Amino acid sequence: MSASNLGHEAGIDEHGLDQHGHVAVDDVVLSAELIVGASVATADIAEYALWLGDDSLMLSQSLGWWVSRAPELEEDVALGNIALDLIGHARSLLHFAGSASGRSEDDLAYWRNEPEFFSAHLFEQPNGDFAHTIVRQFIASHYHFELYRRLQSSGDSTLAAITAKAFKEVDYHREHADLWMLRLALGTEESRERLIIALTDIWPYVDEIFTDEPLIDRLDGIAVRPSTLRDVVEAGMLTVLAECELKEPRGFISSGGGRRGKHSENLGFMLAEMQVLARAHPGATW
Amino acid sequence: MSASNLGHEAGIDEHGLDQHGHVAVDDVVLSAELIVGASVATADIAEYALWLGDDSLMLSQSLGWWVSRAPELEEDVALGNIALDLIGHARSLLHFAGSASGRSEDDLAYWRNEPEFFSAHLFEQPNGDFAHTIVRQFIASHYHFELYRRLQSSGDSTLAAITAKAFKEVDYHREHADLWMLRLALGTEESRERLIIALTDIWPYVDEIFTDEPLIDRLDGIAVRPSTLRDVVEAGMLTVLAECELKEPRGFISSGGGRRGKHSENLGFMLAEMQVLARAHPGATW
Repeated sequence: MSASNLGHEAGIDEHGLDQHGHVAVDDVVLSAELIVGASVATADIAEYALWLGDDSLMLSQSLGWWVSRAPELEEDVALGNIALDLIGHARSLLHFAGSASGRSEDDLAYWRNEPEFFSAHLFEQPNGDFAHTIVRQFIASHYHFELYRRLQSSGDSTLAAITAKAFKEVDYHREHADLWMLRLALGTEESRERLIIALTDIWPYVDEIFTDEPLIDRLDGIAVRPSTLRDVVEAGMLTVLAECELKEPRGFISSGGGRRGKHSENLGFMLAEMQVLARAHPGATW
Repeated sequence: MSASNLGHEAGIDEHGLDQHGHVAVDDVVLSAELIVGASVATADIAEYALWLGDDSLMLSQSLGWWVSRAPELEEDVALGNIALDLIGHARSLLHFAGSASGRSEDDLAYWRNEPEFFSAHLFEQPNGDFAHTIVRQFIASHYHFELYRRLQSSGDSTLAAITAKAFKEVDYHREHADLWMLRLALGTEESRERLIIALTDIWPYVDEIFTDEPLIDRLDGIAVRPSTLRDVVEAGMLTVLAECELKEPRGFISSGGGRRGKHSENLGFMLAEMQVLARAHPGATW
């Protein structure tokens, strides 16, 4: 890993200055991690790309906090890498969404207001203790794994390309979350108790990610219908829970609404932190 | 990037369970990023490894905060990658330091108290605004670049191996910081003003990193004498400052003391955050 993604276009010197000695930030090339497809998104496809991109963006912001705060140094590295993978997915998806309206991924990240974000509530849940973070990650990665597996066959070539790259990464995220579920469940009495509490707290947000919305009816062959993911994703999670000697949590189901721009109060705080710097310097060339 | 560093020893199944079905966390293999040398550190070499490892550990903790909070998504990724590089360096250095006393890198990260940390005050400085983060990064990476360049020839083979890997990474960190120095200095009036304030605030901590301590006298041929780095590191930074149309800041010099375990109040807060989870579960097998 290294910050080697700061290459420059021809005509820009090693310091990012153009031939007139001016800073030419717009000419800094996009990171190699950003998947840029040939297709331009329709308004509907753009909204769908925001569903997926906003999920990953919000989740990555929470995960980044754990760098140097996890229970082991190796875990700092693992959660940090997962956070960076998720930012990469978000950037590609937001970049693609922006092609519908001539906006950059930064425009979409920093200049939309809360009702214009389409993340599901699961991805906005706070870190809580480490068990909460792991349960959120467990659900998110099992969902991502099956969603991206199928989106690789999307009729939209850019969505297919983005998710083909992302699929390999969320496969590791899922392995990582499964391992921690087992470690916490079968570790100490306290770790097991905390895991049970976290499952109870976060399971209510599972329902929303499998809920269809009218948008999906307009994206046949391009999007994956969320309700069709439920059985296989839940079966995969229940297999791990059984190995954990835990049953599927029952009870409250959150009403959701994230796909229609209705969010929990958490998102407001998260957006404030994420956007304050970019908004303090509108149009800044740095 | 991916969290692929969760491989397992033979005999451990895909869920980290051993043949008896117990969680076998101790058998999770060390990350490929961890450089493990053949030599065992003497007490003096271990203390020197802590100087370097603690610098990187504290800096990485602060940088991780920027994931999803930087002014551009691409910069989230860059700072996140730098943070992970630095944790990698810290892990290798702490692992090596622990070989002197039979302690793991996690023991050293989570179970030492403030006076047992040897980071220089520069690396404990808070993130401040983005300009403060970049100035701290500018000084740190120019220092690391020259230090690790020379430590590759250390008479201690493990220090040489760790810094040979780290050198390639801090080379990118330095390029990244130089680019941002230029962008901020030559960007907007406000970005230039903030950069000048940040330089004034952080430059006082430069002196300490070039200050010799008695320990260095006992590590001839193994450690790099800090005072011998000053001329070349300062010359490199001044070249960039000249391109920024800025002069070397003058004024207050911090008295330092980090190498003797004397720290600013910042470190106490940082250690509390870093250590709370590991200390809440002493000896936990998860």
